[in-house]
Amino acid sequence: MKLYDIVPLSKLAEHFERLPGIGRKTAQRLAYSVLQMEEDQIKDFASCMINVRSKIHYCKICCNLTDKDLCPICSNLNRDKSIICVVEDPRDIVIFEKSNEYNSQYHVIHGCISPLNGIGPDQLRIKELLLRVSKGDVKEVIMATNPTVEGEATAMYISKLLKPYDIKVTRIAFGIPFGSTLEYTDGETLGRAINGRIEI
Amino acid sequence: MKLYDIVPLSKLAEHFERLPGIGRKTAQRLAYSVLQMEEDQIKDFASCMINVRSKIHYCKICCNLTDKDLCPICSNLNRDKSIICVVEDPRDIVIFEKSNEYNSQYHVIHGCISPLNGIGPDQLRIKELLLRVSKGDVKEVIMATNPTVEGEATAMYISKLLKPYDIKVTRIAFGIPFGSTLEYTDGETLGRAINGRIEI
Repeated sequence: MKLYDIVPLSKLAEHFERLPGIGRKTAQRLAYSVLQMEEDQIKDFASCMINVRSKIHYCKICCNLTDKDLCPICSNLNRDKSIICVVEDPRDIVIFEKSNEYNSQYHVIHGCISPLNGIGPDQLRIKELLLRVSKGDVKEVIMATNPTVEGEATAMYISKLLKPYDIKVTRIAFGIPFGSTLEYTDGETLGRAINGRIEI
Repeated sequence: MKLYDIVPLSKLAEHFERLPGIGRKTAQRLAYSVLQMEEDQIKDFASCMINVRSKIHYCKICCNLTDKDLCPICSNLNRDKSIICVVEDPRDIVIFEKSNEYNSQYHVIHGCISPLNGIGPDQLRIKELLLRVSKGDVKEVIMATNPTVEGEATAMYISKLLKPYDIKVTRIAFGIPFGSTLEYTDGETLGRAINGRIEI
């Protein structure tokens, strides 16, 4: 007899196992711990799970995640509206905000062009970006997609679409991470660091 | 702006954080991954969570967990009914079953007497055990509570209650784990190994 042969328990464990970083054993342990919880707490957990999908949607302006009409950044009147930083994922905004170096707008395209995964430009929030730019207040768009083949291709694709608008289109700098040493830097990164060198 | 300031997301993350072995960062990552899931999958996950509590209950005979009337062990006619092994937790049964050394019955008392945690004998499934023994088919009760102060006390307490029934009451052997060496064995374990020595 295996405890996880009990159908409702094994079904719940399967769901936990689908979450990132959760293996079979952990999933079983988590399912078992749910069984030990108070009934009210389980119900609240389950409804929070459903709410997270039904109450969170994209910000009307920048496609960031929010449970309001506008995300906290778009609704913040103290932020510069003339620069838009384009990122692949809402979590990238969190990382930018942590750096405290940027006080303008973002635009989340939710992924990158990846023909192998069947993701074309139409599945990304690129139209929404063009619409913002077409309104005329934007002076610069910073492409901050990831330094992967797909991220690069997406940045190039969007920058071409932005050409007609006569605005500055830039790409964030790639080079040696601060605090790192040359010894641990790969050739591609080093190449970009040399090509992107600035005068001191 | 922090992504986890979005209320529905932070609430879900809090629930994940209450699960064993899940820290704040992991909880946030899991909550975020739920947001990425298909709506149907989330609903199914949520209902599995509720089902696990509403559909699983104690076996009418041995208090093991089951979604049927009887657990697979109590409903298995090929198992010896004359010996009952008393364990603290349903997961202990899984461990015993893995050993393939035992083919009789179990009884889960669901915890151990622990005055510090406010758990007295009445909160455990001891009455149900006495009822089974009083029916007269049982010849031996093996106490397999954990070798902790509380587990020992619980074993002693139950064995006293079983005295009037004139059956054999035993305790599983404690000693050096198979495959271990004396070098890594603590004094308490070694003491029990000596006291519990058997003739060869």
